[in-house]
Amino acid sequence: MITVLAGGVGAARFLQGLLAVHDPADVTIISNVGDDAEFFGLHVSPDIDIVLYHLAGLADEERGFGLRGDTFHTLDALARFGYDTWFRLGDRDLATCVTRSDLLGRGRTLSEATAEVARALGVPAAVLPVTDDRLRTRIRTDAGLLDFQEWFVRGGARDPAREIIFDGVESARPAPGVLQAIRQARAVVVAPSNPLVSIGPMLAVPGVREALAETPAKVAAVSPIVGGAAIKGPLANMLRDQGLEASAVTIARLYQDFLDLLVIDSADAELWNDIEAEGLEVLVADTIMASMEKKAALARIVLRTLDARGPTGSPRAEQ
Amino acid sequence: MITVLAGGVGAARFLQGLLAVHDPADVTIISNVGDDAEFFGLHVSPDIDIVLYHLAGLADEERGFGLRGDTFHTLDALARFGYDTWFRLGDRDLATCVTRSDLLGRGRTLSEATAEVARALGVPAAVLPVTDDRLRTRIRTDAGLLDFQEWFVRGGARDPAREIIFDGVESARPAPGVLQAIRQARAVVVAPSNPLVSIGPMLAVPGVREALAETPAKVAAVSPIVGGAAIKGPLANMLRDQGLEASAVTIARLYQDFLDLLVIDSADAELWNDIEAEGLEVLVADTIMASMEKKAALARIVLRTLDARGPTGSPRAEQ
Repeated sequence: MITVLAGGVGAARFLQGLLAVHDPADVTIISNVGDDAEFFGLHVSPDIDIVLYHLAGLADEERGFGLRGDTFHTLDALARFGYDTWFRLGDRDLATCVTRSDLLGRGRTLSEATAEVARALGVPAAVLPVTDDRLRTRIRTDAGLLDFQEWFVRGGARDPAREIIFDGVESARPAPGVLQAIRQARAVVVAPSNPLVSIGPMLAVPGVREALAETPAKVAAVSPIVGGAAIKGPLANMLRDQGLEASAVTIARLYQDFLDLLVIDSADAELWNDIEAEGLEVLVADTIMASMEKKAALARIVLRTLDARGPTGSPRAEQ
Repeated sequence: MITVLAGGVGAARFLQGLLAVHDPADVTIISNVGDDAEFFGLHVSPDIDIVLYHLAGLADEERGFGLRGDTFHTLDALARFGYDTWFRLGDRDLATCVTRSDLLGRGRTLSEATAEVARALGVPAAVLPVTDDRLRTRIRTDAGLLDFQEWFVRGGARDPAREIIFDGVESARPAPGVLQAIRQARAVVVAPSNPLVSIGPMLAVPGVREALAETPAKVAAVSPIVGGAAIKGPLANMLRDQGLEASAVTIARLYQDFLDLLVIDSADAELWNDIEAEGLEVLVADTIMASMEKKAALARIVLRTLDARGPTGSPRAEQ
């Protein structure tokens, strides 16, 4: 089994490549839920859904969220009832949220609801929320404490993030299968997602970071920082707001306790020694994933490298 | 105050006329909730909404349900998740249901949610659900007991209704303002709605029928049966399934204990004596409401007649 820790779009793109070169039935995706929110009484799981939509071939990849060709009639009508509608949930996207909320309202767990939605959308890999418990990322700004989506979408991630809080994480338990997927994996990949607000909430769930450190599987991460900038999103500014350098070396340090291999872009090849100095192996690859071919090529070389460094120390056959 | 007991489309059309000839701020509408249902975890109040949509000028009057120009993208996407979608909730219509469900989920009563939705839609009259408690009409057919919408919409009201059950009615309390609206009205009108499944559930709420019988206001009903047929819907068949004649005289008998005046269509003028024999006054009018002018004319003559027969016995000035 290949297990992937996944945030949003960056992870979804990496996973598209992975499922193109590896049997999807042998892939388990652990999804961030720190971005989850309630809008209009509906439970929205943006990271889970963006992964599902990409893997179902339905994502609006140009816009970077939601479903291709979606419309916004329900949302526009909700505005009439006084709701904020800055979180742009399309009509078909809302159907996913209505379904998830209905299942949760009937007492299903988020894991069960996610599996049901994934099945209906035809997603061939297992997608597990990192926890079924309530876990919400909040951002402390100079203007106060904001829910993640308020800060990220409504505020455009412009306010400096003075503190990142994972509300509820102390009592969050890993969802069924999460720790096993890490411990029993042949390889674990941390997708090129924001380490602070996409991977961070997952690592903060008690037991997850420990499982990553203890698993006999090799653990790789693909750096979301390339050439000192984030491939997408506010990560570079967020790192600086935390007093950290926007560099792949920072990624190495953030994951150093459980990581074996950091995949960096060829633009960052000169960082090799600095990352090795953190005790990590380095793989230099084209991580930009500008096409399906490049997504597949990245997944293939990551898998091949992990296989060559598998837990037994002996090279393995590529799947 | 003019108080109107309202079912669905027939009531909505009568109310359009009433609000055209009478100060809307002086009209209270008591709405049926026996048709309410849950779809996809959302609370749907079809009779309340069809009234609101008509009075807001948004109803799809041709189709007879929902909002003019609505689309069905969310519903079609919900079908993908395995839901039955025979109850055709459009995208904008769903926004109403999402809003109501959200408000109920936050602990508001159905009355409060209805008032908020009505205000947002710009409906100028007060709309009160007959009860805030759970009241569901069920139809016993030869194939078993069906929820009202299963029987009515999914089944096309084709199965003979062997029994009509108002589930929950014994413990349903009139919503705040309902009994006062009947007792303190200057006149009460039972709209041309189905007496068995639109008006019937309201009359079955403990205290409502008694308030109608006891109110000093004159109580009129507009017959939904014209020339032995229902203006709309399955009423004629339903009456026959109950062993009753599809006739305005039957309407007179069903309401006889609280009614003062029955408004019948000119096509039924020959029933005058039979209805008078039930102890009721009769008004013959054009009740078909084929145009806005006719809706207004019907409302005007009903109000004028009620005013002429007001509780004091003295004619009053028309508003």
